[in-house]
Amino acid sequence: MKLPDAHENVPVEEMDSSLGLSPSFDGPSNIDSRELGISKDPLLFIQLNELLGWPQALEWRETGRWMLFEEKLEVGAGRWSAPHVPTLTLPSLQKLRSLLAKGLVLLDCPAQSLLELVEQVIQAESLSPELRGQLQALLLQRPQHHIQTRGTCWGSAHPKKASHDENIPLKEQDQNSLRQKLPPGAEAAAVLAGELGFLAQPVGAFVRLRDPVVLGPLTEVPIPSRFFCLLLGPPVPRRGYHEMGRAAAVLLSDPQFQWSVRRARNLHDLLAALDIFLEGVTVLPPGRWDSTARIPPPKCLPSQHKRLPSHMQEVEGLSRQRRARTEDRDSHEPHKPTPELQRTGWLFGGLVQDVRRKAPWYPSDFLDALHPQCFSAVLYIYLATVTNAITFGGLLGDATEGAQGVLESFLGTAVAGAAFCLMAGQPLTILSSTGPVLVFERLLFSFSRDYSLDYLPFRLWVGIWVATFCLVLVATEASVLVRYFTRFTEEGFCALISLIFIYDALGKMLNLTRAYPILRPGSPAYGCFCQYPVPGGNESQWTRTKPKDKNDLLSMDLGLVNASLLSPPECTRQGGYPRGPGCHTVPDIAFFSLLLFLTSFLFAMALKHVRTSRFFPSVVRKVLSDFSSVLAILLGCSLDAFLGLATPKLLVPRDFKKGAGFHLDLFCVAVLMLLTSVLGLPWYVSATVISLAHMDSLRRESRDCAPGEAPSFLGIREQRLTGLVVFILTGISIFLAPVLKFIPMPVLYGIFLYMGVTALSSIQFMKRVQLLLMPAKHQPDLLLLRHVPLSRVHLFTAIQLACLGLLWIIKSTPAAIIFPLMLLGLVGVRKALEWVFSPQELLWLDELMPEEERNIPEKGLEPEHPFSGSDSEDSELMYQPKVPEINISVN
Amino acid sequence: MKLPDAHENVPVEEMDSSLGLSPSFDGPSNIDSRELGISKDPLLFIQLNELLGWPQALEWRETGRWMLFEEKLEVGAGRWSAPHVPTLTLPSLQKLRSLLAKGLVLLDCPAQSLLELVEQVIQAESLSPELRGQLQALLLQRPQHHIQTRGTCWGSAHPKKASHDENIPLKEQDQNSLRQKLPPGAEAAAVLAGELGFLAQPVGAFVRLRDPVVLGPLTEVPIPSRFFCLLLGPPVPRRGYHEMGRAAAVLLSDPQFQWSVRRARNLHDLLAALDIFLEGVTVLPPGRWDSTARIPPPKCLPSQHKRLPSHMQEVEGLSRQRRARTEDRDSHEPHKPTPELQRTGWLFGGLVQDVRRKAPWYPSDFLDALHPQCFSAVLYIYLATVTNAITFGGLLGDATEGAQGVLESFLGTAVAGAAFCLMAGQPLTILSSTGPVLVFERLLFSFSRDYSLDYLPFRLWVGIWVATFCLVLVATEASVLVRYFTRFTEEGFCALISLIFIYDALGKMLNLTRAYPILRPGSPAYGCFCQYPVPGGNESQWTRTKPKDKNDLLSMDLGLVNASLLSPPECTRQGGYPRGPGCHTVPDIAFFSLLLFLTSFLFAMALKHVRTSRFFPSVVRKVLSDFSSVLAILLGCSLDAFLGLATPKLLVPRDFKKGAGFHLDLFCVAVLMLLTSVLGLPWYVSATVISLAHMDSLRRESRDCAPGEAPSFLGIREQRLTGLVVFILTGISIFLAPVLKFIPMPVLYGIFLYMGVTALSSIQFMKRVQLLLMPAKHQPDLLLLRHVPLSRVHLFTAIQLACLGLLWIIKSTPAAIIFPLMLLGLVGVRKALEWVFSPQELLWLDELMPEEERNIPEKGLEPEHPFSGSDSEDSELMYQPKVPEINISVN
Repeated sequence: MKLPDAHENVPVEEMDSSLGLSPSFDGPSNIDSRELGISKDPLLFIQLNELLGWPQALEWRETGRWMLFEEKLEVGAGRWSAPHVPTLTLPSLQKLRSLLAKGLVLLDCPAQSLLELVEQVIQAESLSPELRGQLQALLLQRPQHHIQTRGTCWGSAHPKKASHDENIPLKEQDQNSLRQKLPPGAEAAAVLAGELGFLAQPVGAFVRLRDPVVLGPLTEVPIPSRFFCLLLGPPVPRRGYHEMGRAAAVLLSDPQFQWSVRRARNLHDLLAALDIFLEGVTVLPPGRWDSTARIPPPKCLPSQHKRLPSHMQEVEGLSRQRRARTEDRDSHEPHKPTPELQRTGWLFGGLVQDVRRKAPWYPSDFLDALHPQCFSAVLYIYLATVTNAITFGGLLGDATEGAQGVLESFLGTAVAGAAFCLMAGQPLTILSSTGPVLVFERLLFSFSRDYSLDYLPFRLWVGIWVATFCLVLVATEASVLVRYFTRFTEEGFCALISLIFIYDALGKMLNLTRAYPILRPGSPAYGCFCQYPVPGGNESQWTRTKPKDKNDLLSMDLGLVNASLLSPPECTRQGGYPRGPGCHTVPDIAFFSLLLFLTSFLFAMALKHVRTSRFFPSVVRKVLSDFSSVLAILLGCSLDAFLGLATPKLLVPRDFKKGAGFHLDLFCVAVLMLLTSVLGLPWYVSATVISLAHMDSLRRESRDCAPGEAPSFLGIREQRLTGLVVFILTGISIFLAPVLKFIPMPVLYGIFLYMGVTALSSIQFMKRVQLLLMPAKHQPDLLLLRHVPLSRVHLFTAIQLACLGLLWIIKSTPAAIIFPLMLLGLVGVRKALEWVFSPQELLWLDELMPEEERNIPEKGLEPEHPFSGSDSEDSELMYQPKVPEINISVN
Repeated sequence: MKLPDAHENVPVEEMDSSLGLSPSFDGPSNIDSRELGISKDPLLFIQLNELLGWPQALEWRETGRWMLFEEKLEVGAGRWSAPHVPTLTLPSLQKLRSLLAKGLVLLDCPAQSLLELVEQVIQAESLSPELRGQLQALLLQRPQHHIQTRGTCWGSAHPKKASHDENIPLKEQDQNSLRQKLPPGAEAAAVLAGELGFLAQPVGAFVRLRDPVVLGPLTEVPIPSRFFCLLLGPPVPRRGYHEMGRAAAVLLSDPQFQWSVRRARNLHDLLAALDIFLEGVTVLPPGRWDSTARIPPPKCLPSQHKRLPSHMQEVEGLSRQRRARTEDRDSHEPHKPTPELQRTGWLFGGLVQDVRRKAPWYPSDFLDALHPQCFSAVLYIYLATVTNAITFGGLLGDATEGAQGVLESFLGTAVAGAAFCLMAGQPLTILSSTGPVLVFERLLFSFSRDYSLDYLPFRLWVGIWVATFCLVLVATEASVLVRYFTRFTEEGFCALISLIFIYDALGKMLNLTRAYPILRPGSPAYGCFCQYPVPGGNESQWTRTKPKDKNDLLSMDLGLVNASLLSPPECTRQGGYPRGPGCHTVPDIAFFSLLLFLTSFLFAMALKHVRTSRFFPSVVRKVLSDFSSVLAILLGCSLDAFLGLATPKLLVPRDFKKGAGFHLDLFCVAVLMLLTSVLGLPWYVSATVISLAHMDSLRRESRDCAPGEAPSFLGIREQRLTGLVVFILTGISIFLAPVLKFIPMPVLYGIFLYMGVTALSSIQFMKRVQLLLMPAKHQPDLLLLRHVPLSRVHLFTAIQLACLGLLWIIKSTPAAIIFPLMLLGLVGVRKALEWVFSPQELLWLDELMPEEERNIPEKGLEPEHPFSGSDSEDSELMYQPKVPEINISVN
């Protein structure tokens, strides 16, 4: 073990100087920082060419490549490995260090081609002329690349032989699909390593080119190379030069080392950067970790904040989110205390400020929509909105007057949404009368029924009162209160809504089986035939004399009747009367409804999970998953149509009844929408999921991403046009009415259940409830559990469960009318919790506001995106594509 | 960066000497190796006590512990973290090295108590008397342990204060649940680290006690300590001493370092061992891996073969499987070319050898069963066998004569199984007429029907022929041919069987819906009433004049009839005649059957997956998962009984019909069983899953396992008694006949589907078929894909699919009778594949025999258990509890 190898070159006191502090670094970095303000360091593509085939048939072969992570050439399989975190051995790093220390280091070499470069390198080495010639010929030899052209999956797995012109980018290099992925301005680094028997001692060279040039066929992509590293020597055991080459490549792929080596002035700087790298490495003990195991890319790369000088923090561009100007405008999360939520102190001050802030962007809000992406967004969001309107409208109508609800939902959504799109501060929000509105309407309806009130006037008055309150809230800038709605409140409410969804879906299905009873063997409801009036008899004979009870009827000997076996409708048509209890039962409906219900639920669930499966290209998976509800409804309808059973369907009215109420209704909705949209209160920002999908469909992402890296987010095309078009289309959808009658209710119930289950499973509260059932040993390694005693976690969960129980009880009693106030009660409970739990505990259990969080001393452990769901908390080394987890409050 | 710190003490040329080669090591290790033959190194429990609270309230606190993996005290949560792979920083290791090099190293210290130890350590340090006193007091201070007593989950999360007697193990130490887990003879190592402001320079000491002693309350478990490591010094940034303490503990937990340090004679040996450790570490680059991320324990620990001297390879006992004598006898995998499968060259030579080999163990095969574990095994295997007999017997009977099949299956299994248990070479195999036998019987049945042959005599003749062939095979020792049945053959056959299961289950369900048609609205089959004979009319009026077609019947005006609305049975009882097509239809049955089918299938699938869920203790999960079929059948029966619908049930005969055939049948089964059992042919080792479950229920596992480690396998209680009792009980089960009639057929079809799907999803073939649908980017990182080009993998899969298709076609035609021969055809196809694929490719695609595999040069990459399913191939760093994956051939 030769730890100290290279240190004789560098005095120890100098080596200790770290990057930011070293005087030798302050100079250039100060100059560079000004340049950096304009141009960031380009991305580096690193390739390892290995010398194979000694002594018979020497050839260079690309065996590895790096951008963020390592890809290894699977020689046998002829493919690139999955990207993984590179692992090194300590000796290889130390040998590399010693080779670099003894070898040639050319910084800002002016070579303009591979030939010039090779000549310069070889001249500097102390070799015999004969060896020089051999070496030069070898270095100019064309390497074999493994190039994956687009769409190659079956064929062309073997590396291609290339043509012979040196400085012109080769055809195969151009066809390389990797090239399209590299951002413009990307640079290459070539590491050449291998064993060469005729060398007596190692030859090491590290070259930084002054101007990056395309080094002929050296790299698999024809981009200019900035770095060139040569590591050759006599044969050593354990593929020593292969490992050294990998070490050099991994070093070059490290953002900090890269930054330093681009600015290094001499060997000393280079070695210092290597030592700083060594200081930062993570070491896994040999007895507990197999060094050949491949570690998949972590969900998020380690923060380079601590490692890089401040002006460098933006350089790691690919891995960081560049926030566009639109993004902070879009932030729909109501409790993010943006500066907009600061109180001004004047009456309507917040509203005035909002309008002032938004007005200058108004024209561009329409012009920005002229992008093809917006057209597909319109189609997608339209389908989702219509599905939602059908499901919720259908269910609401179910409580009142059939599919009238759907049409009303279409029109209401269209008018309110269009007005909203034109006027709102956050126009990407999609409105729909979902979740809480539905619950509230249901409560109002049952309340009005219980107290024999006329529903629509009652609802109008409630609406007017709510609007008045909203106006007062706007006037007094009460929306700053929004930040007291914490995760505790929000998830409690979300859990309640989800449970209501689930309860209602199951309850309605149960009701169906009562409406369409199951025929059991020996059940009395068996007989049915068609009876004609006896010519001489009295026609009203059977219509007047109603049997007292069923048994009477059954045992009743009908005597002589004029009968036929026509089906009831046919019987009536021919002037007969269907007779017997069996005529009124519809068999098979109950079970078929149940099947439809389960099918649509399970199908929607399965489709939703397609997103994280390994099958199909990601576009297909995304479409299947995004349209899960639409597809499930279509499947349900097809099944129903195929069997043609008389399942209960959405009732479609011939024309719009209750016209007056409808207009008032709409006015109320419009006023409400207008006011609450300005306010952004969380319990009225309705279709959270669809709004998020809307933004998602409009997101701009970097297409050129390195293997193993998730695409980075560049911003959202914010504009008002897509929403407007969606709502206009929704309004036109009332002409869909003739189609609606084909939708069976059980299918809608199934989608309802799916929505409830999905929403319920997405909240952190449910994860904590699950902890109650898990032995401590099997609990996931949540950050939460690392910092809060389990008993305290359970106590918090239990309090939340108790609140939920209380809300449920209130909802089920006549007190339901004060239900919205109870939500404020939750805020009070949350406040009271501060007496029970320490701020530290509440930080982990009920993440506080970001600015409060900043004060927590524990470094590097606080959740990075405090409201992005608890997924980021889970630091298990489990690789799974990141599911867009939504901090759903209502669907 | 101070890489070279400690090297001045050790000449470089000496440091390069590695453990096995160093002359200073050969001496003692030669002596020790003889001792090691008898006594292995004990397990080491390592604890880190950290000095906290400087300067106000100094106290020692246990903050970490190690056996195999690291457990960190989550101070905030008051619990031990999940076990994880320890990660270190390089500077901490280097600082530790320099501190040890400068500090005190006492090897074979004779101290008998903590006081003596502390005095010896402090005397050796060059400190002022005052400092010595302070330090001594500090070191004798009682540390705070975080002790998890059994069953603490809610309370007692905070560390307990202990009493004051020093050398007596404390009450809390005794209550520690960890203590019960440590194997007898385990030793402790205490690492004490921390910052101490009054020290001017670091104090480092490493002590190996000559005789391990309990050092009072120093460790959380009152076991004797062997090592003591002290690392104190003036405050340094970044918790330097904490990290150094962790580094010391991780070093001590490394098997190789531990081995060396137990035998080290001086500081030089100690440092050399540390350097060897450093040479072996895996290094992760700082820019690509967050050093604070916790890595869950890998599925299997890295092999220490290369790292340890040969006689040391058994020391890492906990992580290695100690194979008991029983295990190689049990090996039920037919293609493992054990020495038993070497050809002798004599007639019946193999049989004679088998008998000779087995005879001496015969008495112990019964005596070994006297263990409580065997009783629970009997219950479990009995239920599984009966479930299997009901399912398969029911389905077989379904094709022939109802539940007769079940009773026959009970008796057949009982007689054949009992005979088998008494005589067979591998008595843990459970026989049952499942999978291939069923398919074969089905084929025979349809063949005999197609050619108007009498089924049972035909079957007898086939049986006699098969038995004759078997005899010939035994005589010629043909069972050595077994090794030509590779994974290709086996999985092809398994896929076929699974597909037959799935096809049959779905087909039978579809047939049910034909037998019980669904009533559609407007369907003609509506009318039903009870008609009495008209006093003067002719009774045979409606029995003789059958209407020509249905429409005739319906439009038929019945004229005046004497009618009532009684249900058909009641009508018949009262002398009337049920009239009309509606009397013969049974509504709701089709959909309810479908629901039952889906319920039992999905429930069984869900229960099977409970095993890998995080909920419930592992015992509960194991039971739920093991009894998934039983529980699913019970659920289905309960649902059916609850609704009381007339679903099709298993038909139960009053008495045993066809007695003669039955005995012949049994004789045939017995002869077949007897012969094939001696032979062990794969296509007749019937109930693979149950047999494996049988062995699993009898496995002996180490109960004392370190956190993060899977229990290790110690062997199987091999005996003949459990099987015998199970088969006797199965025979008695024919008295279950009255219960059987409550089992609805759709439930059995559901279980049938479940078995098919489960078997299909467990084979590697299906994983390769799935690859066809996966974009290359998303494919899992299978070893197979690392070594074979994707196009070749797809070609292999395509050939296998073609074979499968061919087998399916043959099965569906009159050629089905040659079906068993086709299996031999598969062997031929496999042979022919050697012309298409290279041996290297076939190694990965169709794992060859172990001895052939040994020759493959690529080290450390070949599958460790070539026939243990493809799970071991998957080197993804995905932590999931290992599901016992079974190389199922038939269920």
